[in-house]
Amino acid sequence: MSLTGNMLIAGAATLGDREVIQGINPATNEKLAPNYPGGNATHVDAACEAAWAAFDSYRETSIETRAAFLDAIADEIEAIGDALIDRAVEESGLPRARIQGERGRTCGQLRTFARTVRSGEWLDPRVDNALPERQPLPRADLRQRQVAVGPVAVFGASNFPLAFSVAGGDTASALAAGCPVVVKAHSAHPGTSELVGNAIARAVQKAGLPAGVFSLLFGSGREVGITLVNNPRIKAVGFTGSRSGGMALLRAAQARPEPIPVYAEMSSINPVFLFPAALKARAEALGKGFIGSLTLGSGQFCTNPGLVIALKGADLDRFMTSATETIANSQAQTMLTPGIFAAYQSGVSAIESHASKVANGQTATGPNQCQAQLFTTTAAEFLKNEALQAEIFGSSSLVVQCDTEAEIRQVAEHLEGQLTATLQIDEADIPAAKQLVPTLERKAGRLLVNGWPTGVEVCDAMVHGGPFPATSDTRTTSVGTAAILRFLRPVCYQDFPDSLLPDAIQHSNPLGLRRLVDGVREA
Amino acid sequence: MSLTGNMLIAGAATLGDREVIQGINPATNEKLAPNYPGGNATHVDAACEAAWAAFDSYRETSIETRAAFLDAIADEIEAIGDALIDRAVEESGLPRARIQGERGRTCGQLRTFARTVRSGEWLDPRVDNALPERQPLPRADLRQRQVAVGPVAVFGASNFPLAFSVAGGDTASALAAGCPVVVKAHSAHPGTSELVGNAIARAVQKAGLPAGVFSLLFGSGREVGITLVNNPRIKAVGFTGSRSGGMALLRAAQARPEPIPVYAEMSSINPVFLFPAALKARAEALGKGFIGSLTLGSGQFCTNPGLVIALKGADLDRFMTSATETIANSQAQTMLTPGIFAAYQSGVSAIESHASKVANGQTATGPNQCQAQLFTTTAAEFLKNEALQAEIFGSSSLVVQCDTEAEIRQVAEHLEGQLTATLQIDEADIPAAKQLVPTLERKAGRLLVNGWPTGVEVCDAMVHGGPFPATSDTRTTSVGTAAILRFLRPVCYQDFPDSLLPDAIQHSNPLGLRRLVDGVREA
Repeated sequence: MSLTGNMLIAGAATLGDREVIQGINPATNEKLAPNYPGGNATHVDAACEAAWAAFDSYRETSIETRAAFLDAIADEIEAIGDALIDRAVEESGLPRARIQGERGRTCGQLRTFARTVRSGEWLDPRVDNALPERQPLPRADLRQRQVAVGPVAVFGASNFPLAFSVAGGDTASALAAGCPVVVKAHSAHPGTSELVGNAIARAVQKAGLPAGVFSLLFGSGREVGITLVNNPRIKAVGFTGSRSGGMALLRAAQARPEPIPVYAEMSSINPVFLFPAALKARAEALGKGFIGSLTLGSGQFCTNPGLVIALKGADLDRFMTSATETIANSQAQTMLTPGIFAAYQSGVSAIESHASKVANGQTATGPNQCQAQLFTTTAAEFLKNEALQAEIFGSSSLVVQCDTEAEIRQVAEHLEGQLTATLQIDEADIPAAKQLVPTLERKAGRLLVNGWPTGVEVCDAMVHGGPFPATSDTRTTSVGTAAILRFLRPVCYQDFPDSLLPDAIQHSNPLGLRRLVDGVREA
Repeated sequence: MSLTGNMLIAGAATLGDREVIQGINPATNEKLAPNYPGGNATHVDAACEAAWAAFDSYRETSIETRAAFLDAIADEIEAIGDALIDRAVEESGLPRARIQGERGRTCGQLRTFARTVRSGEWLDPRVDNALPERQPLPRADLRQRQVAVGPVAVFGASNFPLAFSVAGGDTASALAAGCPVVVKAHSAHPGTSELVGNAIARAVQKAGLPAGVFSLLFGSGREVGITLVNNPRIKAVGFTGSRSGGMALLRAAQARPEPIPVYAEMSSINPVFLFPAALKARAEALGKGFIGSLTLGSGQFCTNPGLVIALKGADLDRFMTSATETIANSQAQTMLTPGIFAAYQSGVSAIESHASKVANGQTATGPNQCQAQLFTTTAAEFLKNEALQAEIFGSSSLVVQCDTEAEIRQVAEHLEGQLTATLQIDEADIPAAKQLVPTLERKAGRLLVNGWPTGVEVCDAMVHGGPFPATSDTRTTSVGTAAILRFLRPVCYQDFPDSLLPDAIQHSNPLGLRRLVDGVREA
């Protein structure tokens, strides 16, 4: 399983001919072999045509074939063994235990989607039987199921080289829905991407699926990415990354002759509201917990707590003291790439002119290390300065000190859309929390009580999404089993004979699904 | 219930001050009193602010309150009695029986959404219980439900002055989802709109709901429409109408600082494929049935069969003869508006230079009457001339004569997205139909066997949608109960105490919903 530097176009190893990408070990700035030359427009076209050729047959694979394929991808990823862990650690600078855990999460996610496929609920089968005697007009026999939207372009994220990358949540949910996938690898971890891409290709082959079900492209700059989104064979896009990157893809997709949906998970500062009774009861513990969440993985999470909102006073001062002491002990950690480190430094510099510095973590002892930062400002200042809502990707956070409860509500209403919003409350805070929850439901995809937003469970109830600019499509989630719904569309069949109907909606219900029949859900 | 010419802003009758709209009786070109002065940007703003003020409480109304409200709208519409029928007939030129039927459909649709609300399935409640002992990390308690996206702008359609207008499918599904609605009335039927708008306002008042739940605006030109879509309080748009109109709203919505979803149902020519055995067995009956569907309601349906595709030969000649005889007997019928009539005339003129005229219906005997038209062309010509795919709103259709089955498949692949695609088949055609169905599933939202596409049932299994340009969002339907899903988004609650949780996902399941609990659907 040595690395080759090849892309993977419908199972064929293919060397690019554009600007070379190289993995970089951010802990040492050492460049990692091999070279990954970027693809060109012809490569994009080939991958999309292969995906298109595979689409009609892949989308009609049986439930079991498709579920077994997802399980097989997980098996193949695990079978790579330490080579995958070693390379991902090298390319990301993330601790080995974190990468091991992420591999578990990635494979668990694939198997969770296999279970979701097997449940068949995603088919949403609906049957309205014919009513030939109805007056004034008879009713035809009408049946609905969900079908895959078409080939999906997936953009790997930098911060989860496994779980949000080549075989991450977007790929898993698109494949689960019956969509072929063309991945544009993130340039921060090309070797990891090649290893995982090959694992998927092996699973495609073992399952006897058409090779076009999966392709993997490399490319620096925007050529490959925008060309991919513009390709008429591509029918949806999954992306996790920066607001500017997501917006560029969204704008391209909207400008196509046929606009397509873009599921871009972009920007969130994940406000945490500290309520008075909770703050009085446990200001010190909250300060510690907050800094723990803020500095986890150098703060390189979409759900990093970048904003804290509370009433000013003695209890908030205790929280600040605790946070200051804790952050002061936090070691600088290597960030994912030199570019991300530079952006963090520049984000921190920018906020320094708008807010007051409270404390920082330990200084860097090596290249690309994130020194945690804590700032504070007043509600009045926050409300008038949009710059204070900009996401800083890394361990930097801002505490907004409010004079009144009304000001807290104003700050909440003033927030842009978020992935998460957190309430730290005690029993006595519940009436006040109840007043704030409706606002937060409008602002965020996930609301937490007495936790910290980092850590996103892959399960049925998860929402990793939220109003713009947290995502480009607030009706969905990119983590959890509901993510499959992003890649489906309904088709209705009127008066079809059984021999032409898909099995999910044939008269005899051969798949044994709980269908909605004449307005009643089957038991 | 005399007409006043007022808009209705959160229950308050409000006279506009812009260009006056008047209903016109298209059968006589007579202008109908009263005048409806258009609204201005301040009116739009007031309606949107009222909708916003109503949103948090309306979206949390109980299932029964909301369902009863929808039922009450239907009751109030029926209570208007003949005044509504009279006015709608005058403004639309449609036959009285058709308008009476449409009122039945409209009220039935509202009651169907009431039943859908009562089922609670739209809440999609998901529960993943806490796993405090799980290794390596515990799982939090995670619960998901759907919430309303926010106030919705609805644009009434010209061709269904009741069923796709002020209290039509978009309004019913948005209200069902918990979204306040601001309707921009179609200028073709302002009096009908006022009557229905007042019926909704009475239902709002009787249900004790905040008045901002519903507003009705008038406005010619684009000022009111684009201002409405641009208002930051509006979070989704429903539209049925022309491709140019839908695209203008879509582009405006995409260009907002916060892009929002637009559900525009726009353009479809609804191909009908005549298979050899069916054609041999019943060419004459097919010809009659086709012209019946084509000339129904002057062809003013989104699902009008504007394209027929078949192998050329003796059996197709029989079909053409039958169609020619039938269309020759079809009386010219009054179209909805002078503008729609002019557009029809101009569409027919345009296609005359691209295709061969086969036959036409009887000539007009009054103003604005649609003379049905039948054209034919070859597959080769169809494949190279995009103008032949343009929708002509009215009773005009094009028969594409193919030399080979391969050419039929080429034509099918060449089609833009459609609301419907129809297969006329006999038993012997099933193998060939099976080959075509995968293409048609990619092209259309509803596939029919041995029927005609006009007539759209309001039920659970209906899809009135399809790939672009049939609609701007292929993942949805604008008719049928699944339309409610357009106006919902998921929210996840992590470790919430019951006292802060919405009832749909409280621990004791007080609503008795079939929830997805730890991966298993409750019985």
